[in-house]
Amino acid sequence: MLRKIRMGMIGGGRGAFIGGVHRMAAALDGQIELVCGAFSSDPEKSRLSGVDLYLDPNRVYDSYEDMIFQEKELPRDIRMDMVSIVTPNHLHFAPSKLALENGFHVVCDKPLCFDLAEANELIDLVNSQEKIFALMHNYTGYPMVKQARAMIQHNDIGKIRRVVVSYPQGWLSTPLENTDQKQALWRTDPNKAGVAGAMGDIGTHAYNLMEYITGLRVTHICADVNKVVKGRLLDDDVNVLLKLDNGASGILTASQISAGEENDLTIKIYGERGGLEWSQIRPNTLIVKWLDRPSQHYRTGVGDLYQAATSATRLPAGHPEGYLEAFANVYKNVATCIQAKIANKKPNSLHLDFPTVADGLRGMEFVNKVIESGKSDEKWIAMAE
Amino acid sequence: MLRKIRMGMIGGGRGAFIGGVHRMAAALDGQIELVCGAFSSDPEKSRLSGVDLYLDPNRVYDSYEDMIFQEKELPRDIRMDMVSIVTPNHLHFAPSKLALENGFHVVCDKPLCFDLAEANELIDLVNSQEKIFALMHNYTGYPMVKQARAMIQHNDIGKIRRVVVSYPQGWLSTPLENTDQKQALWRTDPNKAGVAGAMGDIGTHAYNLMEYITGLRVTHICADVNKVVKGRLLDDDVNVLLKLDNGASGILTASQISAGEENDLTIKIYGERGGLEWSQIRPNTLIVKWLDRPSQHYRTGVGDLYQAATSATRLPAGHPEGYLEAFANVYKNVATCIQAKIANKKPNSLHLDFPTVADGLRGMEFVNKVIESGKSDEKWIAMAE
Amino acid sequence: MLRKIRMGMIGGGRGAFIGGVHRMAAALDGQIELVCGAFSSDPEKSRLSGVDLYLDPNRVYDSYEDMIFQEKELPRDIRMDMVSIVTPNHLHFAPSKLALENGFHVVCDKPLCFDLAEANELIDLVNSQEKIFALMHNYTGYPMVKQARAMIQHNDIGKIRRVVVSYPQGWLSTPLENTDQKQALWRTDPNKAGVAGAMGDIGTHAYNLMEYITGLRVTHICADVNKVVKGRLLDDDVNVLLKLDNGASGILTASQISAGEENDLTIKIYGERGGLEWSQIRPNTLIVKWLDRPSQHYRTGVGDLYQAATSATRLPAGHPEGYLEAFANVYKNVATCIQAKIANKKPNSLHLDFPTVADGLRGMEFVNKVIESGKSDEKWIAMAE
Amino acid sequence: MLRKIRMGMIGGGRGAFIGGVHRMAAALDGQIELVCGAFSSDPEKSRLSGVDLYLDPNRVYDSYEDMIFQEKELPRDIRMDMVSIVTPNHLHFAPSKLALENGFHVVCDKPLCFDLAEANELIDLVNSQEKIFALMHNYTGYPMVKQARAMIQHNDIGKIRRVVVSYPQGWLSTPLENTDQKQALWRTDPNKAGVAGAMGDIGTHAYNLMEYITGLRVTHICADVNKVVKGRLLDDDVNVLLKLDNGASGILTASQISAGEENDLTIKIYGERGGLEWSQIRPNTLIVKWLDRPSQHYRTGVGDLYQAATSATRLPAGHPEGYLEAFANVYKNVATCIQAKIANKKPNSLHLDFPTVADGLRGMEFVNKVIESGKSDEKWIAMAE
Repeated sequence: MLRKIRMGMIGGGRGAFIGGVHRMAAALDGQIELVCGAFSSDPEKSRLSGVDLYLDPNRVYDSYEDMIFQEKELPRDIRMDMVSIVTPNHLHFAPSKLALENGFHVVCDKPLCFDLAEANELIDLVNSQEKIFALMHNYTGYPMVKQARAMIQHNDIGKIRRVVVSYPQGWLSTPLENTDQKQALWRTDPNKAGVAGAMGDIGTHAYNLMEYITGLRVTHICADVNKVVKGRLLDDDVNVLLKLDNGASGILTASQISAGEENDLTIKIYGERGGLEWSQIRPNTLIVKWLDRPSQHYRTGVGDLYQAATSATRLPAGHPEGYLEAFANVYKNVATCIQAKIANKKPNSLHLDFPTVADGLRGMEFVNKVIESGKSDEKWIAMAE
Repeated sequence: MLRKIRMGMIGGGRGAFIGGVHRMAAALDGQIELVCGAFSSDPEKSRLSGVDLYLDPNRVYDSYEDMIFQEKELPRDIRMDMVSIVTPNHLHFAPSKLALENGFHVVCDKPLCFDLAEANELIDLVNSQEKIFALMHNYTGYPMVKQARAMIQHNDIGKIRRVVVSYPQGWLSTPLENTDQKQALWRTDPNKAGVAGAMGDIGTHAYNLMEYITGLRVTHICADVNKVVKGRLLDDDVNVLLKLDNGASGILTASQISAGEENDLTIKIYGERGGLEWSQIRPNTLIVKWLDRPSQHYRTGVGDLYQAATSATRLPAGHPEGYLEAFANVYKNVATCIQAKIANKKPNSLHLDFPTVADGLRGMEFVNKVIESGKSDEKWIAMAE
Repeated sequence: MLRKIRMGMIGGGRGAFIGGVHRMAAALDGQIELVCGAFSSDPEKSRLSGVDLYLDPNRVYDSYEDMIFQEKELPRDIRMDMVSIVTPNHLHFAPSKLALENGFHVVCDKPLCFDLAEANELIDLVNSQEKIFALMHNYTGYPMVKQARAMIQHNDIGKIRRVVVSYPQGWLSTPLENTDQKQALWRTDPNKAGVAGAMGDIGTHAYNLMEYITGLRVTHICADVNKVVKGRLLDDDVNVLLKLDNGASGILTASQISAGEENDLTIKIYGERGGLEWSQIRPNTLIVKWLDRPSQHYRTGVGDLYQAATSATRLPAGHPEGYLEAFANVYKNVATCIQAKIANKKPNSLHLDFPTVADGLRGMEFVNKVIESGKSDEKWIAMAE
Repeated sequence: MLRKIRMGMIGGGRGAFIGGVHRMAAALDGQIELVCGAFSSDPEKSRLSGVDLYLDPNRVYDSYEDMIFQEKELPRDIRMDMVSIVTPNHLHFAPSKLALENGFHVVCDKPLCFDLAEANELIDLVNSQEKIFALMHNYTGYPMVKQARAMIQHNDIGKIRRVVVSYPQGWLSTPLENTDQKQALWRTDPNKAGVAGAMGDIGTHAYNLMEYITGLRVTHICADVNKVVKGRLLDDDVNVLLKLDNGASGILTASQISAGEENDLTIKIYGERGGLEWSQIRPNTLIVKWLDRPSQHYRTGVGDLYQAATSATRLPAGHPEGYLEAFANVYKNVATCIQAKIANKKPNSLHLDFPTVADGLRGMEFVNKVIESGKSDEKWIAMAE
């Protein structure tokens, strides 16, 4: 018989942003139960966070190591099944590794790791064992993103010729990191964020979305990498020309100094017979454009959509589903796959639709090449085979 | 110390729609735990629904009476605190009454009751005791709806002169009730829905939204009540002229035969100095129009919004919040107020912001007057004082 | 051989609004030449207006009577063919009558006349002779309005069940008539505008648009007629419930106190199989909604549109056509029909697509019934057969 | 006393597209009169086009040389004042030169010439004499484009940091040039279009718009130039990274294989304090975005706009102005300046706001550099000083 999946969280204590998002997303479908956590490197803060979350104080830990080792000793019907890692980038690898090595499934926030060395080690580890590792590229969870992907898989718009994916935000238009703003602080700090700023923070989402929907791989890039705000150490505004493996061209942009933009991840894909346009700001609409015919507005829950879209939809037409629901779709698939593992069953292929360590490694490689290209006088830089 | 609120559900078994919505909304913030349920009048269906929801089989009941009586006997630290009633209209009153009389808080789906007699009895009961009764007018939960209300409370657009609220859907354009579609069946059946069809199902939402945002009360109405689909016994298309208690005029419409419309509840309010426009289809935008100045697009999470809006917001700007988040805001306020009661504290006034039995009674009175007006040759019908 | 049509203008001198619009619209297609005018009841103002327009001073007249009589005496290859009447409502009838009686075609701004008596006299006069009389309901000139009409003529969305047409403006939210604003002054003056304010000024457009697109006729109305701004003598905010001759219901609204609205004439039509939505603010898009299929955005110039739409289109897709182009479509059809008359040919039926004196009479009757209904306690008022 | 300006047209005969646009635009304000033409290199076609346009057959010429020489001999109060050149790119230079050398003002369609050699010769010629030469970058004529420019001139959004200008069309997604489509034929023919396809046809508009609004100049570019449709000889899909002279970065794209796009020239500009967004598809709205404040929708005719915008506006708020009105604004300014010249007056600076030969030369240089960059392995190519 199926049971709820028990989750422990690493990071996400008071004052954090993405931890709360992960908790709401994991809770939404009633399939996952938060049972323990190591919410902060500060034990007192971890403890208080546990109180906020109504957790058993015995299962609020001083460190992730404590959590992993102590939970491992708990009886099988009590101990956590998986960890959710919601720390800054430099703290993705070590807890992922420790969790996997001790038999726990992992959901990890993006980007995969701090650097490529870590990423390569992690992919080997994941591939050498049986536990699930999921990377949180939540934007792939939207029903209309899945519809776009399925339309391209079914060749509905013909061979792809042009892709434009842009991710503008405005919140780092000022040197926010010079205030105490926690989100800005670590994202602009090379010791915590890694080699890239905007590119790592949001460019990876844009890249992953493009790969996910189109199924294409980038072969060459040419990047303009800018640090616009005075004194900033990492990129905050990046434009990249793309060559894709089917011969198509494209542009990818990630900017956090686009003043007045909220979070407008948008993708436009042009094939031989038509185009697709999706924007995260109005996520329940997929605009389908045709040569010489009226465009169509596909909507979540309306009409005959592909199963990938309908199975990711919770509500009838006209009841807007948002960011948390998309986020929850990743958790839902992961939880269902863990349940299948517990039941010794093969998961339905629909439930295997979540980002993996391999997606994460390609994302890291892309970010690294973009930063390299930004410093190079060479026009086109080849991605690794 | 605060603890999670324990919820039992009445209705919402396999095949239902709104039950699942209530469960997701209640779960979202990790403040409410579903602990038991009487999910169907068919005990086997109730049992299977309990399995789907990973519930303890001992707390999945054959009837809501069983649930209320048996939970009452459970130890205080285990038994449910509240019930969520998600049955069709004719089954709102009896379980509400029984739950309140046995010491449980209630969240009930709208409309309040099957008829006015029940509604009047219920309001007396609620007013005579201490338990919370909340009515699920979920559309009041959107941050931008709360912002609109606060702007009017602060007189930002001047005295209101004109209100247009419309709620078009298209899903009942065909005689869907002649198929086995469960949602259509009871909504078009006078024995289950009450005197009204579209007016009760969605018109009550439109009416409540109008009252909630403007703070105005309807004094007179003139209604055109139509049964458009052949053979339908209840209204499916209604237009109502309104007179409001500050002298303003208005229109309220509820239609379920507006072919091609999804669920586009929209309100436009015009004051002496400007206008407000909000639409449920794009719920994170409140358009604020001014005389001789560019209009502004207020957005969830952007800029200096009133506290009523910000306290109902979970995510930063540009991360769309949808129907479930608005729905969850009602549960969140109810849960917080129950927690306050448990702790013997007075709830913050922000948390008292949820629809009450009095709102529900006014809604029922409005629906009844609309149906009466539809049959009358008199132009203006007065609402009761 | 075809030649340009020679036009004289009555009204539209310095400081006027709609006169300039008529001149630009008439000039756009190079088919009509402004040759003379009586631009004001003030001869000096008329003269100066003629200078502004580079006219031969000998053909700038002190009064419309002078113009009609003196032009009539000019040689056939010089004298005007038609007059364009752009005066306030109370000055539509007399010049129309005089022009027709003296052998000139007429384009007259709406509404048709000051009152029903004039309107009835005019219709008889028009019907008794051969000259063209066209009424300027310019909104019917938009390609996407013509597409909507053709779609309904071809039964594309099934039998119509519901129509909502609304015309909100905000510019009369304040007592602008107490300043020197010329446009506000005559529109709010019962001696110049007639029995109605907003209803005559913009409600007639809404009514005409509804009739034009749907082909339906109103049988009964129930109106709420308001004078919102203190001291105003004519209606500035009107809501009307409609019964249509095919059994459909509807709403028509005209408001000039909808603060912050520009000029957002919008119509939504629901049939058994789908719905149409058009809004003057974004006139090149016709939204076509379907039961259980993605909606389509028909666009001017895109794809296989009906001939009525394509023949009213001047530019390729994506080159926005606006208010003046729609306005010009009325002039273009009139000019083409006059050219056909000169050539003794029967005009193509596409060119007969302009509003007539019969449309104008029905509009006047509607306005009168609305004002009557506003004062009545009877719910439904029948339109004349 | 002012008089109408007399225009002769070169090109634009039956079957042409842009010629009719020029004629409508020139006619709109009643300030310019078409008096003669050499509409085609085929004399019979020229003659028939003259008939269509109701011209005096004596002033319909067999060639532009005939027109220029014969008009020159006509009396001063009859002969044309200016020529409008609406031929394909390879026929811009020679008639421009001949017209200027013979004392006629010139309005020429873009791009300026066939190649840089011609462009350089033309700029010298223009600068050495007194006649007006205007280049038709019509998109600069929109009121909201002028508002954007004025806002930047007034530093309303702070120092510009990022510019994204994109011009997607889909009409050349198929090898339309292999049919008889006249518009596609010459635009894809290197002997008529010059070195560039999409870049010359629409990229020059995008470039000009960017320069016009921002006042910035491009210093370096890096271009990805693609010929997507098989067999096409000129570019149909181009992406360009930009460096601007104030240190800002940007992207410019021009694509004619973006299937399903109509003509969506869009520009987004980000400054230190806010952003501007304008799109040709909805030209009467300028979205003004702010850091931490609601965005504003500036609209043609609404509120206190800069004089550059209001003086380019013909209609009140909510009466959409489109492509032809913007186009006409260029003609209006040119005509007003010619009138000033005739009257020996200095034109108002507002009327000098039309694109010049210098703008055209920079556009040609940009196009040439883009094509050069497309073939280069060097990353950044410097624009000429």
